[in-house]
Amino acid sequence: MGQNGVVDIFELATPALLIDRDALGQNLDFMAESLPGERLRPHVKAHKSTALAREQAARGHCSFTCATAREMAGMAAAGLGDDLLLANELLDTVRLSMLADLDARVTVAVDSASTVSAAAAAGIAEVLIDVNVGLPRCGCLSADAGRLADSARRAGLQVRGVMGYEGHAVGLEDREQRRAATEVSMQLLAAAHADVGGELVSAGGTTTWDLNKLATEIQAGSYALMDTAYTRMGLPFTQAVSVLSTVVSVSEASGYAVADCGLKALGMDHGDPSIEEARVWFCSDEHVTFSPDPGGSQLPAVGDRVRVLPAHVDPTVACHERAYLVSGDKVFDCWAIDLRGW
Amino acid sequence: MGQNGVVDIFELATPALLIDRDALGQNLDFMAESLPGERLRPHVKAHKSTALAREQAARGHCSFTCATAREMAGMAAAGLGDDLLLANELLDTVRLSMLADLDARVTVAVDSASTVSAAAAAGIAEVLIDVNVGLPRCGCLSADAGRLADSARRAGLQVRGVMGYEGHAVGLEDREQRRAATEVSMQLLAAAHADVGGELVSAGGTTTWDLNKLATEIQAGSYALMDTAYTRMGLPFTQAVSVLSTVVSVSEASGYAVADCGLKALGMDHGDPSIEEARVWFCSDEHVTFSPDPGGSQLPAVGDRVRVLPAHVDPTVACHERAYLVSGDKVFDCWAIDLRGW
Repeated sequence: MGQNGVVDIFELATPALLIDRDALGQNLDFMAESLPGERLRPHVKAHKSTALAREQAARGHCSFTCATAREMAGMAAAGLGDDLLLANELLDTVRLSMLADLDARVTVAVDSASTVSAAAAAGIAEVLIDVNVGLPRCGCLSADAGRLADSARRAGLQVRGVMGYEGHAVGLEDREQRRAATEVSMQLLAAAHADVGGELVSAGGTTTWDLNKLATEIQAGSYALMDTAYTRMGLPFTQAVSVLSTVVSVSEASGYAVADCGLKALGMDHGDPSIEEARVWFCSDEHVTFSPDPGGSQLPAVGDRVRVLPAHVDPTVACHERAYLVSGDKVFDCWAIDLRGW
Repeated sequence: MGQNGVVDIFELATPALLIDRDALGQNLDFMAESLPGERLRPHVKAHKSTALAREQAARGHCSFTCATAREMAGMAAAGLGDDLLLANELLDTVRLSMLADLDARVTVAVDSASTVSAAAAAGIAEVLIDVNVGLPRCGCLSADAGRLADSARRAGLQVRGVMGYEGHAVGLEDREQRRAATEVSMQLLAAAHADVGGELVSAGGTTTWDLNKLATEIQAGSYALMDTAYTRMGLPFTQAVSVLSTVVSVSEASGYAVADCGLKALGMDHGDPSIEEARVWFCSDEHVTFSPDPGGSQLPAVGDRVRVLPAHVDPTVACHERAYLVSGDKVFDCWAIDLRGW
């Protein structure tokens, strides 16, 4: 423990999820200036932390997007329930009823007669019509959105508008291709909105936050912490998340080192994590094997600390119980990742 | 709730980790007959559940392998601490001291002067010399094992023998190649053992359990629950683990369905999960998109339940707080996945 109660990262047990306080602050500030207040509906699935959501609320965003019932309940319990959207379909009447009883404004996505019925039966008050805008996932056909909205209203639900995530566009590295794909998607969403009505057109993400011109609110989440996949895309956000690890073994003969950050501490769907000035060989359950870049840094020593940069932030954060807010090598706070599970 | 307090899987909130009771029982029984008692040191990292470990203990295995300090502490607290091996290097003196204080027989792996010093300083009594047998991960050179054992003994540690995981061999699908690679590895381990002494030669895994002729104890873990990667390899164990999911959206027009089991419910390092008689298109954070095989089953309906088969069991289990023990569609028990984290 250093001066003023500030802990050094060398005192943390590893693997430990780190959030760079300065990078996070810059990301949050930039987005809050660019899409102030309700123009952004931050997606909490990317950080699963009410402490981080509170930072977003402090910058003026009081409506949030959630992926799970657990996220909705946790946000409401934390007093962040001004306007919570469950942006996924849910059929489970037990959890839907729980949502309806939250001390929060609750809106859920619906895309079928079944999801409309389930929401109405559970006492949900408000819905968005989820429209498929090109990603082969949830959402009704654009042409069916108006009829679905009518049936929702007949079932007693308030229809606040439409939602449509251009998830097939957000990963396109070329900005113009991304813009074009987003525009095609939003034409489908605009047509649906014309039939559905309501004040909300909810769409977009971290890579289309400034390209999506139709959405009344952008559902970006990754912008806060970022990851190596999104960092490659030339966005105005910097990577704030890493996993601190300890070098536990070194092979001088073969020129590699092993640190204690593996498959259970990382989302692996986007591939291996990165380590600055090093090449990652592979990950095992609890380990990453890596070697320094030729001509770069030396082989680390046993006991050294290494920051492992995850390729995909959302499933990485979900592996951890807590995150440490750091600046340089100093730890300033510990935030619970309190929105895990379903 | 059905007769006799037995719940139907349709009453479970999804995604839900399922363990097929009959497949698990067969896997555990077969292994206990083949490698009775201390011939198997089951690796708990593959299931992270003291309830499942208790089933292994009931079949005669009273020594266990762990990957993390948390697994060691949880096993000791559950009364399963007869002989616990931490098969990974640990430098953290706080956690090492915690291990030394457990009400359990504790052995830790060491592969360097630093790990020997850390173990001795923390009051650890017993160690295994971890030898690199070909996998580029932890372990000292075979030729250095004797000297390391001497230094450990000088530091006051009991050296129980050697450990060496043939992790580069276990994934070879051809059984003869796997056997040959295992033999080369075990020659390195035998040479180390000759220099180190001690009664234990700890090695092996689910795919080499009967090929590894040197090990006095096999560290298999996956055999209990299995996964699609190991199921392809023609082993005498069947897949007992799946993730129950609910179909939340169906696209009649495009012929696909979407179920609520995604990246946060699955270990993805071995690739996409499988669904019987279907093709998996891709996974998102909370979803899997899939289509029925041509000529096979029909497109499911919204609300249908689907069992998603993970490609890699260890990181999949680590995503879940609990597992349900099922037979067919009946739920017989709920086991906590109580050994998560570090």
